[in-house]
Formats: sequence, structure tokens, C-alpha cells
Amino acid sequence: MFACSLFHPLLSFTVLCVFHVASRNPPKGSYVLCTRSSDGKTLYTAGHLPQPAVGDLVTGKIGDDLTVEQGTQAAEYAGLSLLATLKHELGDLDKIKRVVKVVGFVNCVDGFSQQPAVINGASDLFGKILGERGVHARSAVGTNALPLNVAVEVECVVEVEE
Amino acid sequence: MFACSLFHPLLSFTVLCVFHVASRNPPKGSYVLCTRSSDGKTLYTAGHLPQPAVGDLVTGKIGDDLTVEQGTQAAEYAGLSLLATLKHELGDLDKIKRVVKVVGFVNCVDGFSQQPAVINGASDLFGKILGERGVHARSAVGTNALPLNVAVEVECVVEVEE
Amino acid sequence: MFACSLFHPLLSFTVLCVFHVASRNPPKGSYVLCTRSSDGKTLYTAGHLPQPAVGDLVTGKIGDDLTVEQGTQAAEYAGLSLLATLKHELGDLDKIKRVVKVVGFVNCVDGFSQQPAVINGASDLFGKILGERGVHARSAVGTNALPLNVAVEVECVVEVEE
Repeated sequence: MFACSLFHPLLSFTVLCVFHVASRNPPKGSYVLCTRSSDGKTLYTAGHLPQPAVGDLVTGKIGDDLTVEQGTQAAEYAGLSLLATLKHELGDLDKIKRVVKVVGFVNCVDGFSQQPAVINGASDLFGKILGERGVHARSAVGTNALPLNVAVEVECVVEVEE
Repeated sequence: MFACSLFHPLLSFTVLCVFHVASRNPPKGSYVLCTRSSDGKTLYTAGHLPQPAVGDLVTGKIGDDLTVEQGTQAAEYAGLSLLATLKHELGDLDKIKRVVKVVGFVNCVDGFSQQPAVINGASDLFGKILGERGVHARSAVGTNALPLNVAVEVECVVEVEE
Repeated sequence: MFACSLFHPLLSFTVLCVFHVASRNPPKGSYVLCTRSSDGKTLYTAGHLPQPAVGDLVTGKIGDDLTVEQGTQAAEYAGLSLLATLKHELGDLDKIKRVVKVVGFVNCVDGFSQQPAVINGASDLFGKILGERGVHARSAVGTNALPLNVAVEVECVVEVEE
């Protein structure tokens, strides 16, 4: 119940974000979740995985283990995880000027063609939380395999207040 | 005839571009085709699909449904679509300082190894239209699946006049 | 012996880099290995392939032809090739402020899930050579096919002294 309700009235977004970034979202290799350009204006994020606030990473191949709808939900979790990282870096999501770019990788069967519907899970979340500042250019592509067998991996480039 | 002749003397590039962007190239999900950094210097594009000026998107898997040559043609269409988006954003392609980066995803069979030849379709078009300003760093990779089952998806980062 | 020993005392890193970039690492298509933003602050690299200092590109599919360890070694070669390109562009790796982003594509069988361990080969090299300046955000993803059937392809974005 809890894990599926991102906007449950008892849970503020901030609480969810802090929860996420503090305990659920460590890098899976020799890298960091986010870097900032030397002029302070641009954040580059790592590829983020579909980590719900409660429960395990969403794993499986879309078109086989998972439906398009389950993939879209996974992309929303990856988007939430990205927002948690941005909040941790900036202190306040109000410092985001604009999400300029999103790339979403979809773990899917050969010939699967609905990557845009899947990655809309992240894109629509950015729109809900950030409004016009969440509107981005995007690439959505398929892949035969992702880290830890997750369903999606999503990264972004964000312009921020200096 | 018409669709295969990008440089037909009766069709100016501008006309083709306007035609493209106005009617043939809508985003396939919750995103926009292009964003501009807050300092006005950098454009990030969405992944663009192989949309001819007339006719349907080029679909299929290279190495199975399509030959390398057909893939290269598809990448040229994706490149033209990118140029149409840039023209729409900037008004004039002369405002491009340089295409700094291109990433091309090739829908192909396992073990296909000629992604560079395929994505040259877009890269060579940028060279023809933009000269030295079209020379870019590039990644070309394979994928098992793309949106709408298209043959290629191509994105770019472009430096522009402020 | 020679090819496996990146830090052999008889070979300085500089010598290896110059060797690499001069003779072993030509672009595989219509692009360049590196571009620099017009403000001089950012380098965008092409996807680089796993080219040892001596011997052939590392080819094959991880999880079938190659082990995870062989994939990690391949990613170290791709990382070295990237450093060679950066050295050629900048003259001196000291001009690197920070590697802000790395994307690594892993040629692997369906369902392979250890892309992070593979791409650590490049990430850990950047850490060894550049220290804190080598710490980056990263995406590591699988793919069913890469150019020339190589095992990995790695690209990066780097902030540099103007």
C-alpha cells in the first residue's frame, strides 16, 4: 500500500526524498550519484534505478516479466530517486532552473516498441513536481540488459541556480 | 522519388525542414524536441527518429529486416529531423557554432558490428550542411529495441550563438 | 606481459598515452574523438573502444565469450584510451578540473546484470590517475551489439581549465 502511493497525504515529498537518498540509493559502482560543473550551473546525474520508497528494486524485462504499466511505474520510481539525489545536492528543489535532458534505458524484449510510454513515468513525475521547469528533451531506448536486472535506468542533466 | 531525394533542386532545405518540423516530427511522449541551457549557449535535443519528408518512419532491425545501407539512409533521415528541430529553435542554422556531440542508437541483431557505418548517415549530413561546424564527437551503439520499432534514434548537443 | 601491465615501471603513462593516440585509436566513422565547448570549459568525447597498448581491440560478448573480469579489463583499456585523447587535446592531464560524467555500454548476453563491475574498470582507472578529479556520475548499461563487436564502449564529459 505504502510503497505504491507516492503522494499519500501522510508522507510529504521531502520525507520520501530524504528517506530515499539516505538509505536506499547507494551507487552500485565506483562513481557518485551527481556531479556539478565547475561554474556551478549544471548537474549531471548517474543513471538511477527504480527503487521504491519501501521494498526492492523493480527488476525484470518489460514485454516478458513486466507489463508496460509496471515499466511506467518503475520509471516513476527512478524519477523519484533522481529527485531525491537533486534535493540532497541542492538542499531545495526550488534551486532547479530546468531539467534540460533525460535519457531512459528500458530493459525489454527484442522488438518492444513502447519505450516512450515507459519513460513517461519519470517525465510525467518531473512535470508534476517541477511544473514547466520539469519539461525536458529526452531519449528513450531499449536494452537487452541492465545492472542488477532492473527494469529501467534513467539519467538527467539539470540547470541550477549558481 | 520525392522522398529519396533530399537535395532535389526543386526543394530547398528550408522548405523540407519547415515541412518536417511542422507536421511530421511530434514528440512521442512527455517531452519536448529541444531545450536550451539557461545561459543560452547549449541546445540539448531529444532522440530523433528516422522520419522521411514523405512517407512513414523507417522501421525494422538492421541485419535482419534492413541492410546497412538502409540503416545509413535511416540515420540521414534522423539527422535531417534533428536539423529541422534546430532550425525551428534557432530560426537560422547559421546560429549553430558547433555540433559538439552526437549519440546514435542502432536497432540491430545481436553481434551486428557496423553501427559506425549506419550512424555516418547522420554525421555525414551534418558535415554536408554545416561544414566544419558539423564535426562532432560521437558514440554509436547497438540496441535490441527502439520506440515504434524504428531503425535508429539519434540525439545531439549543440553549441549556439547566444 | 607488456600489454597487461599498464603501470609497468619502464613505461610512463605519458608514453603509453602518446603511443595510443598517435597510432592505435583512430575514429571508426565520420566524427572526431573529442570536441570542446565554445567557452573552452567542457570536453565531450566520442565513445572509446577497448584498445590495449599492444594487441587487438577486446571483442566479444560478456557472459558468453568473455568473463566479468575480462570485461573489467576491457573497460580499463577504454578508459586509458579516453585519457590518451584528453592528454592529446589538453597537452597535460593536469588541466582536467573534473570528469563530470561517464557513460559505459557493455556488450553482453540478455539478463547480464554486472554492468557496474565491468565499467568500474574505467572508473577506477580515472580515480587512480586523476584522484578526486576523476570521481564522476555514471550510467552503465547493457547492449546486444557494439561497433567492431567490441566488449565495451565508454564516453565521458570533462570540465577543463579554460
